[in-house]
Amino acid sequence: MGRERLYLYDTTLRDGQQTQGVQFSTAEKLKIAAALDALGVDYIEGGWPGANPTDSAFFAEVGRTRAAMTAFGMTKRAGYSAENDDVLAAVMNAGTPAVCVVGKSHDFHVTTALGIGLEENVANIGASVAHLVASRREALFDAEHFFDGYKANPDYALTCLRAALEAGARWVVLCDTNGGTLPHEIGRIVSEVIASGVPGGKVGIHTHNDTEMAVAGSLAAVDAGARQVQGTLNGLGERCGNANLTALIPTLLLKEPYASRFVTGVDMEALEGLTRVSRMLDDVLNRVPLKQVAYVGASAFAHKAGLHASAILKDPTTYEHIDPALVGNRRVIPMSNQAGQSNLRRRLAEAGLEVAPGDPALARILERVKTREAEGYSYDTAQASFELLAREELGLLPEFFEVKRYRVTVERRKNKYDRMVSLSEAVVVVKVDGEKKLSVSESMDEEGNDRGPVNALSKALAKDLGSYQYLIEDMRLVDFKVRITQGGTEAVTRVIIDSEDSSGRRWATVGVSANIVDASFEALLDAVRWKLVRAGARA
Amino acid sequence: MGRERLYLYDTTLRDGQQTQGVQFSTAEKLKIAAALDALGVDYIEGGWPGANPTDSAFFAEVGRTRAAMTAFGMTKRAGYSAENDDVLAAVMNAGTPAVCVVGKSHDFHVTTALGIGLEENVANIGASVAHLVASRREALFDAEHFFDGYKANPDYALTCLRAALEAGARWVVLCDTNGGTLPHEIGRIVSEVIASGVPGGKVGIHTHNDTEMAVAGSLAAVDAGARQVQGTLNGLGERCGNANLTALIPTLLLKEPYASRFVTGVDMEALEGLTRVSRMLDDVLNRVPLKQVAYVGASAFAHKAGLHASAILKDPTTYEHIDPALVGNRRVIPMSNQAGQSNLRRRLAEAGLEVAPGDPALARILERVKTREAEGYSYDTAQASFELLAREELGLLPEFFEVKRYRVTVERRKNKYDRMVSLSEAVVVVKVDGEKKLSVSESMDEEGNDRGPVNALSKALAKDLGSYQYLIEDMRLVDFKVRITQGGTEAVTRVIIDSEDSSGRRWATVGVSANIVDASFEALLDAVRWKLVRAGARA
Repeated sequence: MGRERLYLYDTTLRDGQQTQGVQFSTAEKLKIAAALDALGVDYIEGGWPGANPTDSAFFAEVGRTRAAMTAFGMTKRAGYSAENDDVLAAVMNAGTPAVCVVGKSHDFHVTTALGIGLEENVANIGASVAHLVASRREALFDAEHFFDGYKANPDYALTCLRAALEAGARWVVLCDTNGGTLPHEIGRIVSEVIASGVPGGKVGIHTHNDTEMAVAGSLAAVDAGARQVQGTLNGLGERCGNANLTALIPTLLLKEPYASRFVTGVDMEALEGLTRVSRMLDDVLNRVPLKQVAYVGASAFAHKAGLHASAILKDPTTYEHIDPALVGNRRVIPMSNQAGQSNLRRRLAEAGLEVAPGDPALARILERVKTREAEGYSYDTAQASFELLAREELGLLPEFFEVKRYRVTVERRKNKYDRMVSLSEAVVVVKVDGEKKLSVSESMDEEGNDRGPVNALSKALAKDLGSYQYLIEDMRLVDFKVRITQGGTEAVTRVIIDSEDSSGRRWATVGVSANIVDASFEALLDAVRWKLVRAGARA
Repeated sequence: MGRERLYLYDTTLRDGQQTQGVQFSTAEKLKIAAALDALGVDYIEGGWPGANPTDSAFFAEVGRTRAAMTAFGMTKRAGYSAENDDVLAAVMNAGTPAVCVVGKSHDFHVTTALGIGLEENVANIGASVAHLVASRREALFDAEHFFDGYKANPDYALTCLRAALEAGARWVVLCDTNGGTLPHEIGRIVSEVIASGVPGGKVGIHTHNDTEMAVAGSLAAVDAGARQVQGTLNGLGERCGNANLTALIPTLLLKEPYASRFVTGVDMEALEGLTRVSRMLDDVLNRVPLKQVAYVGASAFAHKAGLHASAILKDPTTYEHIDPALVGNRRVIPMSNQAGQSNLRRRLAEAGLEVAPGDPALARILERVKTREAEGYSYDTAQASFELLAREELGLLPEFFEVKRYRVTVERRKNKYDRMVSLSEAVVVVKVDGEKKLSVSESMDEEGNDRGPVNALSKALAKDLGSYQYLIEDMRLVDFKVRITQGGTEAVTRVIIDSEDSSGRRWATVGVSANIVDASFEALLDAVRWKLVRAGARA
């Protein structure tokens, strides 16, 4: 028997932007849309054109996509015809193949929030959808507060859906706007809606995570017959977020009964890119990816318990519900336990360091990683610093140069035009090739802007390293992350620096100190040392 | 009709400690146990005595609790009698009123991981539980991999449960150890287990969040008749974590059919402390609390969408599924470029600034917030800086003092003992009461540790503010957060500083610059100015 089509509708760029603290630029929206399109979702809701300049610019620039690009707006307002409502006109002007309009389906909201009659609201829904259809757009109707509305007045809620369908809507989307409806209720109500004559093939589901059950609620709706699921990457969205597509998609593709019953636009190959897509979004948001999230989190296949870790080495199915490679993730056996040594050897081999099993250096490296992590270091991300630490224990790290001292000065004062300006200056003193070298740099960039003390320090350190200088000329600092963390009993600063060279290679190093400048300097120093190691430099 | 008793079993201190990066000290365990006991959970699983020195110390120190303190261990090993198994003996020696032993119920694991016969495993379960009961302990049996085991060999899985019950176990806990079983399957299997003769009143459920449905899976088990739910605070736990009690408890107490059907050890008064308990755990872990989590997250009742925010002001039930006060949380209407004037007026009113609707200053404030947020500022969190910005536009911000210039020097060099040491020194020049004042401070704390340049700057700024000095004496910097963000086209640093005074009041301020020291100084300056405004100081 053929599998049924299930449609995925992504609203990361619209409802996802309702997340507190999230504001995408147009360039970021374009980047996320490209990733969603490659993943294979069926609809990309790009924003509300007219309501937000960034959204209008996005639709103007996005170009053709495999997914149906969708503009979001609201049903026409009372007192305007659909043709003359300028809010709706701005939505239409984005020129997208699909348009989703949100409207009320809860009688209480119609009278309280809109302050219009119940029949007038139904007429507005019908006229708005008819206008979209007449303009040859695929029309979607988001029924706001549908579940609360249905519980209060099922007939009215259904009348709103019918008005949209009779006007030609391709989908009516049942929205649990406040996020308070539990999965069993969602399942029951969707069943009743379909039993009342609304075809399941035209029903979408839009849930929120206010009870931590948005994913379960979406699946309950699918079980009851809905065939479109709305959600966001990484579960972004208003309040507690929307249904998390990053968790939903693997369940739909890998778990029964869904895997045998449905086909989606996302195939098994695209699924292998899911972890990367999730991390890309965190990168755009400059967020530290959450480790414990389902399927794509860095801890999702981390086996800390000693019993689990040793069983996993015998047979991965003992403690893994799926193969992590299916979603582009990987197994982690933290170094802090027995199973750690074989894992450590694997990680060293990745850095080109072959160490025999049982070599006493392995235990020393593990011990040092443990001590340093207790101080606030993090070697999960800073692979280059980890490699330097291991090389030191293995006696494979030459001392290319020695830093004797440094000094950074940050000054802020009025310039001759009476404006406050800042400038930093750094002096670094190193001993290299048997010679003492003093280098000084300031924090001004080519445009005359102050880039701060770490920038000055980075330039001074890389200014004159004698015979090594030519090896580091093509290095540049591409990212700088700062976190306040706990080192023993005191708060300390952890700095992670990403560097890049002309070959496009990137590496991450870490520094920790109560002093943020010191922590940065430590990470900068590791970045230079790693580059010299990889360039094959000798002391 | 009376409500049925539903039991809550917390495993934050045991399974929660399997979270990657989490390692509680004994003192931390005692603190968390006290909070759990005050909350009203029925069981506190404190750890595995004997396997871990911290756990043994915890049980030795914890004293009497209202909840049944529970030690965790495993069923006796093959080849030992229950009385002679030293691993089990160490568990018993903790002297807890309840003991939970984990054992296999999946035939594949018995033969593969344990390498013993199926009947021998059943005998081990029975003998272990009988030993607990003979020692007058309440006995719990954790059936590891129960759901996978039941799917593979239902008869064997049930035989393991019966062995525990016949030996006198108070509870058999069905564990979805790998976290891959979906809620509908959990519901079906729990129903079948109960139909087979295992009383629902003796069935517990233990789920993991690997498909983001641990909460839904737990409720599916309760729907099917299970009467004990296991979970952790904030959903800590191995891999993606355990069922999150912080989300489950409010649903059980506030949502139907659970609220009318069950009574738990947590009452409505204790529920109001839930947000505080959740934040306390993050505090112990030194984690930034996640904003988007159900019920207790700082964004759980944040209304960013303009339409939502204005409706909320008319009637909170329009966009809130519960009253946030029920879980000790609160409503947030963030300032952002999507928010409307009505939000703004409400937020100003919270700061004691009454502004008439339509006042042109409102549009100016919104415009300035928008411009500053595009530069990288974030006023969602930095309420005090927002208030200063608004006061400035309203002409209500006196110029208490003027900063003429500052200079910070960070130096790292060898001390007389040939050790590398760092020291920062800051000079701040202000004009206050018509006089120029130069203040200098260094970054050394009382113990002789360098606390970095921002610390030195903070001390110099607050050292001599003339006639205002007495008003800021009780201020202190309690948190410092740094984020690299985008300001226009360049990466800039955003610093958020939390300050506190002797009244326990806390306030947050923000600074943004490419120069991290400058960004910090701006936030420090706002912190001082806000304190002076609130103290009623005049220029």
